[in-house]
Amino acid sequence: MTTSVPLPRVGDEARAALFTDARTTYSFADTAVDDATLTDIWELARWAPTAANLQPLRVLYVRTPEGKARLLPHLDEPNRPKSASAPAVAVLAVDNRFHEHIPRILPIRPQLKEHFADNPAQRDAITSFNGPLQAGYFILAVRALGLAAGPMGGFDAAGIDKEFFPDGDRHSVLVVNIGHPAGPPEFDRLPRLAHEDVVTWA
Amino acid sequence: MTTSVPLPRVGDEARAALFTDARTTYSFADTAVDDATLTDIWELARWAPTAANLQPLRVLYVRTPEGKARLLPHLDEPNRPKSASAPAVAVLAVDNRFHEHIPRILPIRPQLKEHFADNPAQRDAITSFNGPLQAGYFILAVRALGLAAGPMGGFDAAGIDKEFFPDGDRHSVLVVNIGHPAGPPEFDRLPRLAHEDVVTWA
Repeated sequence: MTTSVPLPRVGDEARAALFTDARTTYSFADTAVDDATLTDIWELARWAPTAANLQPLRVLYVRTPEGKARLLPHLDEPNRPKSASAPAVAVLAVDNRFHEHIPRILPIRPQLKEHFADNPAQRDAITSFNGPLQAGYFILAVRALGLAAGPMGGFDAAGIDKEFFPDGDRHSVLVVNIGHPAGPPEFDRLPRLAHEDVVTWA
Repeated sequence: MTTSVPLPRVGDEARAALFTDARTTYSFADTAVDDATLTDIWELARWAPTAANLQPLRVLYVRTPEGKARLLPHLDEPNRPKSASAPAVAVLAVDNRFHEHIPRILPIRPQLKEHFADNPAQRDAITSFNGPLQAGYFILAVRALGLAAGPMGGFDAAGIDKEFFPDGDRHSVLVVNIGHPAGPPEFDRLPRLAHEDVVTWA
């Protein structure tokens, strides 16, 4: 018999804020979100786990009028008013040169830096899985800060990359509007799959 | 001036449980985790957002001796003792036929079912991004229930698929050990990237 170390459970209010009551937001109030709060989002999200601690996700926060003017033309037209109304917009990108950091973030296996340098396909496997994984953490971290998240896939990734990531290393994967909702949700929540459509047992 | 709708913030204790204090677990106590608790994990995770509400992730919970005997040979050898010690192991998989559910989960655009049926490459784009995204939600939902998660990428996906998903529709993407830690973490937390290596501003 082994002795377990009890972990804290998260209460109903926090579960509602993160999962069961939270809604994707499409229209934001003009209440500001300061840079310290945006920094706090990452301070939470960065601790959740990634494969071999490789942490390939990068975050660009766009919140100035100049930044918005550079970003909006690269969003699908129906998405532009959403991001225009959001006090901050996060562009989540994966860093194709994540392996440069390996000696510092994975000191137990520094040789993986050279391994990944020589294997671009294996770098792609890391970024394509762990980028979206970290995006999931990021969205829940936004909510943990008492903010609404509006993730959007409709944008010209190559256009954003050229405008904001001219070095060619970062590739944008998701745009997330961040702020306070302008009002209650405008339509009912879309249905989730029934448990029996998702969960099986063995 | 618009009026914002205040959202709840998540307190320090819940943030610690989900993000800042939580650790990946490699060795589990033999404290049982019942099926109701495993169901509760999905009851949280399923509400977090996916592209067009498409929800491509599927969850197989392996927790019987027979199920473990079928699963363990397909894990990389160093991972077998971890999953053997865990009272439950979740195999997260993406469903390549997620579009069958579209008339029910996206009733505003039922015609997308036919669109995706005719475009396997676009189905792959949905599963390859939203599968890992939902895996991120899943890992944090495990923690919200007061359980430790041990996500592992080292397994033979084709072998697991053949054993558990013989219809060929589901493709395993992550294995997550679930339970109560057998003891305190055995090594210090690996370092996270500095904010200035990740976050940029515009």
